[in-house]
Amino acid sequence: MMGLPQVVTMREVGTRDGIQSLGAFVPTEQKIEMANALARTGLTRIEVTSFVSPKAVPQMADAAVVMGAIERPPGLSWEPLVPNLVGARRALEARSDRLVVVLAASDTFNLKNIKMTVDDSLTGIAQIIPVAREAGVPVSAGIATSFGCPYEGDVPEVRVQEIVGRLLELGVDEVGLADTTGMANPVQVERMLGGIRSRWPEVPFGLHFHNTRGMGLANVVAGLRTGVQIYDASIGGIGGCPFAPKATGNVSTEDVVHMLHEMGIETGLDLDALIRCAQRMSEILGRDLPGQVMKAGPVGIRHAA
Amino acid sequence: MMGLPQVVTMREVGTRDGIQSLGAFVPTEQKIEMANALARTGLTRIEVTSFVSPKAVPQMADAAVVMGAIERPPGLSWEPLVPNLVGARRALEARSDRLVVVLAASDTFNLKNIKMTVDDSLTGIAQIIPVAREAGVPVSAGIATSFGCPYEGDVPEVRVQEIVGRLLELGVDEVGLADTTGMANPVQVERMLGGIRSRWPEVPFGLHFHNTRGMGLANVVAGLRTGVQIYDASIGGIGGCPFAPKATGNVSTEDVVHMLHEMGIETGLDLDALIRCAQRMSEILGRDLPGQVMKAGPVGIRHAA
Repeated sequence: MMGLPQVVTMREVGTRDGIQSLGAFVPTEQKIEMANALARTGLTRIEVTSFVSPKAVPQMADAAVVMGAIERPPGLSWEPLVPNLVGARRALEARSDRLVVVLAASDTFNLKNIKMTVDDSLTGIAQIIPVAREAGVPVSAGIATSFGCPYEGDVPEVRVQEIVGRLLELGVDEVGLADTTGMANPVQVERMLGGIRSRWPEVPFGLHFHNTRGMGLANVVAGLRTGVQIYDASIGGIGGCPFAPKATGNVSTEDVVHMLHEMGIETGLDLDALIRCAQRMSEILGRDLPGQVMKAGPVGIRHAA
Repeated sequence: MMGLPQVVTMREVGTRDGIQSLGAFVPTEQKIEMANALARTGLTRIEVTSFVSPKAVPQMADAAVVMGAIERPPGLSWEPLVPNLVGARRALEARSDRLVVVLAASDTFNLKNIKMTVDDSLTGIAQIIPVAREAGVPVSAGIATSFGCPYEGDVPEVRVQEIVGRLLELGVDEVGLADTTGMANPVQVERMLGGIRSRWPEVPFGLHFHNTRGMGLANVVAGLRTGVQIYDASIGGIGGCPFAPKATGNVSTEDVVHMLHEMGIETGLDLDALIRCAQRMSEILGRDLPGQVMKAGPVGIRHAA
């Protein structure tokens, strides 16, 4: 397989996307413990929390407390999600290294999820960027439902490209394409990212896959084939989709890292430490997690004959 | 993604590989019910049982009874596994449409699994082929541990090619490469199958993946890129690996078929009927199965806004 990137950067989203929909509140100390444990695996980017309204997402009510307690080793970027200007100001006060803004490619999903049209979301993002820039903090934008919408179905690639273009005009530093409900397939990923990457070869793009229908790691490989080097994942594969309550969540960080290492791609991450984080997350949440390598162990394990 | 096959043939192995290691005996009537239900999904090839010694694999003690009770629609190939000449004769008596012989690429695994060296296995296969040919029944050979051995680790590609060559000299009609314990990665699959397919362009090759470490569907896509058109899978993703008791089993038939259809590749199969088979298998076994699409539903599902 020629032309795959030699190095990939993982963005951990377990303590944000992974737990935000959980009914039971994860104690703040355990969030801090997990964030710090993840930071010790070699991860350089962690979407640790969300400065969303506590009424909208009670699980994230402790965002500022978490941000105040995490360790700050050099080279590590703590990058919370911010839904609006109020959240962005709170996140900057909490010493965020980068802000993550989000909108959906589908109006129906955006309206349902954050009660705004896509145009209104872009207006909100336009307010955040100068504030972040003044603080010297870069901004990543995530486009939810880039590969399909659970309400609308297909999302035209031209629509995704239009939103990418508008975000770049607004000055975002990086764009992530998210398969919010696990609808992407490898042919689609390779076609869409091929088109986007050739139109904007200088822009860093990230990919955010869910394993809802088992295609998560196949989609990562499809992204690699187009040269994308930034992948979101959640420790243990936690996370989920309100549309498929029994389905799995985000692709599992340790499963993606394990595959990348087996493929000869460097991540700079300590796989064993990631597996220990996944096992600890399983203890914290009190249930089995979807991650596979945490159960089977890495390929490198040898059994006595 | 140019050059992918437009059509893929699935080989269902759920009632053989999927259940052979289960401690609890699956009642014969339920095996027959499941085999017939699978046959009504459009599947044309089903590795329905194994004519192995009942002492070695008690779960398969009813092989002849199952073979006697299944429906025989035109175009459907019932192809049991046969470990030796005795098994082959029993399978032919039971009106098998094709025989499947197996050996491992790794001597340690072969000795541990079937108490023979690889050379002895080849001698056994050499006895089976003329008997099958006389009965007008084709023979497929499966090479276990083609992508790695849990005892020996890496299995050299030259070793796999050597065994392929010897099997073809013996007269097998098709060769399957099996990732018995889920060690394959997409780079390896594409490299190995690329080499094998260019050396033997006229031979039909199949691939048999386990999802033990989450890479199963990514490996299917890698196989597709080399033009392989035959894939083993088990309904609901049942099956397992004695080395990783908590890990998942074979790639799930309905998850693979769902992905192929999303990628625009035809299988001739009724996905909804496969999902119903997976749900029934879950009832029969009394537990959740690893299949994802049976939980999340296909991508095509629309939710009300």
